[in-house]
Amino acid sequence: MTYSQMSAEERKAEYARLQKEFDDLKAKGLNLNMARGKPSKQQLDLANGIFDLMRDPADYVTDGIDVRTYGELTGIPSAKRLFAEVLGCRPEQVFVGGNSSLQLMYDTISKAYTHGLLHSPRPWCKEETVKWLCPVPGYDRHFKVTETFGFELVSIPMTDEGPDMDAVEEAVKDPAVKGIWCVPKFSNPEGIIFSDRVIHRMAALKPAAPDFLIMWDNAYCIHEFEGDFIPFPDMLALCAENGNPDMVFEFFSTSKITLPGAGIACFACSEANIAYMKKLIDIQTIGFDKVNQQRQVLFLQNKAHMLEMMRQRATIMGPKFRCVVETLDREVAPTGIADWRRPKGGYFVSLNAMPGTAKRTLALCKEAGVTMTSAGATFPYGKDPQDSNIRIAPSLPPVEELEQAIAVLCVCLKLAALEKLGL
Amino acid sequence: MTYSQMSAEERKAEYARLQKEFDDLKAKGLNLNMARGKPSKQQLDLANGIFDLMRDPADYVTDGIDVRTYGELTGIPSAKRLFAEVLGCRPEQVFVGGNSSLQLMYDTISKAYTHGLLHSPRPWCKEETVKWLCPVPGYDRHFKVTETFGFELVSIPMTDEGPDMDAVEEAVKDPAVKGIWCVPKFSNPEGIIFSDRVIHRMAALKPAAPDFLIMWDNAYCIHEFEGDFIPFPDMLALCAENGNPDMVFEFFSTSKITLPGAGIACFACSEANIAYMKKLIDIQTIGFDKVNQQRQVLFLQNKAHMLEMMRQRATIMGPKFRCVVETLDREVAPTGIADWRRPKGGYFVSLNAMPGTAKRTLALCKEAGVTMTSAGATFPYGKDPQDSNIRIAPSLPPVEELEQAIAVLCVCLKLAALEKLGL
Repeated sequence: MTYSQMSAEERKAEYARLQKEFDDLKAKGLNLNMARGKPSKQQLDLANGIFDLMRDPADYVTDGIDVRTYGELTGIPSAKRLFAEVLGCRPEQVFVGGNSSLQLMYDTISKAYTHGLLHSPRPWCKEETVKWLCPVPGYDRHFKVTETFGFELVSIPMTDEGPDMDAVEEAVKDPAVKGIWCVPKFSNPEGIIFSDRVIHRMAALKPAAPDFLIMWDNAYCIHEFEGDFIPFPDMLALCAENGNPDMVFEFFSTSKITLPGAGIACFACSEANIAYMKKLIDIQTIGFDKVNQQRQVLFLQNKAHMLEMMRQRATIMGPKFRCVVETLDREVAPTGIADWRRPKGGYFVSLNAMPGTAKRTLALCKEAGVTMTSAGATFPYGKDPQDSNIRIAPSLPPVEELEQAIAVLCVCLKLAALEKLGL
Repeated sequence: MTYSQMSAEERKAEYARLQKEFDDLKAKGLNLNMARGKPSKQQLDLANGIFDLMRDPADYVTDGIDVRTYGELTGIPSAKRLFAEVLGCRPEQVFVGGNSSLQLMYDTISKAYTHGLLHSPRPWCKEETVKWLCPVPGYDRHFKVTETFGFELVSIPMTDEGPDMDAVEEAVKDPAVKGIWCVPKFSNPEGIIFSDRVIHRMAALKPAAPDFLIMWDNAYCIHEFEGDFIPFPDMLALCAENGNPDMVFEFFSTSKITLPGAGIACFACSEANIAYMKKLIDIQTIGFDKVNQQRQVLFLQNKAHMLEMMRQRATIMGPKFRCVVETLDREVAPTGIADWRRPKGGYFVSLNAMPGTAKRTLALCKEAGVTMTSAGATFPYGKDPQDSNIRIAPSLPPVEELEQAIAVLCVCLKLAALEKLGL
């Protein structure tokens, strides 16, 4: 029987029972964290071989370049080749940076703001208004980048196959709309893979703004934790085929393949965009850390080897996601108060609690020692109009801890729903 | 006899003799580079021990932090302590970043432009005009950062003890003047150490702009190649003592101590500034490469050990600088056509050729296969009003090659001067 089918009496009894369960959980004095998509210690240890590399002086040189010294602003050729193979584009379209794809994304937007992009009539700081499309639920750090530059964030609903393209096509008729955030494979937080139809409509957009920018954050493009690797189209080629060669910047990093915060990141875009950005970035730095680029290339070798590594990581991640989804299926599904997605890759499980209960649920979790991503974080300005979406990040805790954390979450979801339904 | 004392006949004969010498040098087909302050291969090899570190899993953890994962935006505590010891400030005043101090400098200016600094009435992109003080001759990459944001660059003459402080004090009365570039120890390119008097006047400035910013690029603060280490005052404390705690950002990196482009960089500033910048940088990145921070700390250990390392590097750099200065003393001094400084640290020798001959000199050098920093590079907009200053960067070539390159430079200086004096 679902909660809404229950009589007031039955709900009262259920609430009393759950409150006791909650008190027992609270008494355990838990201190668990499912707030961010951090890899676990066990997963970090899989990359420790990276510390044994670069011991042979022959490794300091790649394609005739001494990686220890200044130069090669756009990255070492072997790293470009590796990323091009993974993303399905050409090495000339790849710019290899430092340890953070977020930094490359921020800097791309920042340079659009201070200098403009290749086809900008003027720097965006000189525009009256800049609007930005944010598929929701989405990634809080993306939204914050565009928020910090004062853009007006416009929510676009996500569907089962990606952003609602009717809404996107309508929105880009406004010349103030300058771009959109996308996580096309295993989207954050829903784990949705954009369908071919969505991707093609996205590549074929005819925005009013001549400098409209698709921020294509392909963070999880080889991050399956269940099932086989799913090939994914090259967005750069698709945009070019549709007469939009300069409309997309794709981003990727090895942070969740080697070491978080000590991997390497890249962006990929048209060669015209590479040339334009190179001129701007040349003022900002003499070059990124090529020693670490070389270290990553030696460790990762090629796409086939990287996919093999990801299968190893899947043996750690898979059980965690199964634990989350199976517990929710068992504990929460019968109550009819929430639904959730069943991702096969990425780093999150997206859950929609009964509208109006997400904040209360997470406050209760906190009270019981379980920290989750804040309610609302998956929406622009941190405000979920339904107060419903909850992002679960199960990667960090070991399975035993995860079980406890999810048990807490289930109880809190139910308590909040019963309070909402009225006791 | 100097060239200006020569008769026209004597100059003609000298020119003919030099032209033959020039042709002989040209015939050698040289391909030498003294354009940038790049460390030599020999110097890079001194740091190869850095590749043997981080092999013990115990090294992954520092002050309880696993350096392999996300977090610690402002850097690991041990790196803050190390930089604080070197700069003479407190660890809480240090923000440790990635591999590039230039990037930290650019980002500081960029954030002033997009968001404003702690005491800014508005972001600098909303200001009618932003003016910036550039001591000349100075560092081209500094000037380009402020040029790229459209600031109006104002030249300030350098004296033997640093920037002309009368000119600086006068200039900062203009509220549009928002900051100044400084390389206070072994300035680029002159190798001047700012005197205590200059430093104190700088720290005590009372600029009209409430958000005036001293960019204190202490790149060479332990980079003596001759004589003992020269202690240098803590600019942060001096500014604070003078009621300007938030007026200065100091920059430093290990690029020329460990590996160029694979070291770590930091900025140091008041704790109020750290808190302000942290909030802004938190949008840009989850964190810098802490594995490399840890690697550098393990390698460098402490200030005493770093000074010892710099003495080793001095045994490579010292002979190169002596070669430059001694050759100029021997070959050019008698002609009276140029003068140059005798730095004891840093990466450059600054030479003032006969006014109106720097461009011609460097064009001749290029013809003979010797690439130098472009004429004018040490001035805002790349324009030396005197066409006189030449920056010599002797760090990269081995001494044998350097001798050849300087021989070419000497001949070219003379040819250009004779042409200017009239034949």
